[in-house]
Amino acid sequence: MAQHIVTSFDEDLKELNSAIGAMGGYAEELFGNAITALLHSDPDMAQEVISKDRIVDAMQRDIEERAVLLIARRQPVAQDLRETMAAIRISGDLERVADLGKNIARRTIAMESTAFRQTLMVGVEHLAQLGLQQMKQVLDAYALRDTAAAAEVWKNDSEIDAVYTSLFRELLTYMMEDPRNISRCIHLLFCAKNIERIGDHATNIAETVHYMVTGQQIEEERASSTRV
Amino acid sequence: MAQHIVTSFDEDLKELNSAIGAMGGYAEELFGNAITALLHSDPDMAQEVISKDRIVDAMQRDIEERAVLLIARRQPVAQDLRETMAAIRISGDLERVADLGKNIARRTIAMESTAFRQTLMVGVEHLAQLGLQQMKQVLDAYALRDTAAAAEVWKNDSEIDAVYTSLFRELLTYMMEDPRNISRCIHLLFCAKNIERIGDHATNIAETVHYMVTGQQIEEERASSTRV
Repeated sequence: MAQHIVTSFDEDLKELNSAIGAMGGYAEELFGNAITALLHSDPDMAQEVISKDRIVDAMQRDIEERAVLLIARRQPVAQDLRETMAAIRISGDLERVADLGKNIARRTIAMESTAFRQTLMVGVEHLAQLGLQQMKQVLDAYALRDTAAAAEVWKNDSEIDAVYTSLFRELLTYMMEDPRNISRCIHLLFCAKNIERIGDHATNIAETVHYMVTGQQIEEERASSTRV
Repeated sequence: MAQHIVTSFDEDLKELNSAIGAMGGYAEELFGNAITALLHSDPDMAQEVISKDRIVDAMQRDIEERAVLLIARRQPVAQDLRETMAAIRISGDLERVADLGKNIARRTIAMESTAFRQTLMVGVEHLAQLGLQQMKQVLDAYALRDTAAAAEVWKNDSEIDAVYTSLFRELLTYMMEDPRNISRCIHLLFCAKNIERIGDHATNIAETVHYMVTGQQIEEERASSTRV
């Protein structure tokens, strides 16, 4: 009987883990599509990202409900409890990732044209690739309970911050050269900031994975060069 | 015996509610101090806001732990469960409010001087006052389980969005007039965006209060003029 209960908890947890995996894949896809829409000035694709954000919201509510039911039914402790709480936290971060993707999509529509100078778009693409890579790696780290991979993601956030800062400076120069660029540049600046924040959510998830597996917080102050 | 358990749950919930009240007051204070530091170019006060943000983080962890313990021990259902989940959600929003306050404080330090033209600072002050008012009202609505007050907060978010948009336009003009203003204006623009986002968290809390009391989501699409 005790064995039966243990197995059931594991099954519930496994389902919760797959739900997180599915949600993570979906949020990642929306973010990727938002970037494609931005780089190719594609308002239709941007509109699709905006409308699909609701699906991610529903996924989050579903995961939260399952996790709470699990806590109420099984009263998990120690690692089991940490796994269940991790699901709630990670679904919160993923909801924010999709939301930031939606913001990028809205700005893509507002900008109409993204005919920026080539180096700027290369910078945005590079930043977005780093962000997507961080998302992918941290979701893998979660699926495999791989703390080393999570620590890697956590450390790599400083690279995103550095690329963001250099992009910020380039946008500034561009705006100063010709004030007519300012309005569009600010949209792009906010897009870059949104990507940088997606990187922060990947880092949050890395911290959650570390805590879930070890029961300890990652102690060092997060290496971050973007303080603003 | 059953009576005893019911009373205990109510007591646990009361403690959770006071913890949210305390956290809300603290987050509100940090946000207020961040604004004062910004308006008076006070780097010492800004530094204090930055260092105190950790206290809010600790408060959130404490509330989350208490709520999870409550779910595991009492297996609450219906309104009791909604109240417990509301505590988790609201503490998440309050943590973000303090974090956004910290961002404003960091930019205050980065800007060094806030000798902007008077109308701009009046605009920032107005925006911040609206944000503070929304925070105060929604925390009262939570404490009193007042859905009408929560609905009021929810509706008033459009006013914050409108003030933000007008401030955004003014900043844009200022930047176009003299490119030397651009760098500082962008800091101020991000500060304004942070205040606008604090307003969004007040609206989130209003939605949580509504759901907690009624068991229904606020259905209308949130009236929002800031789409980007």
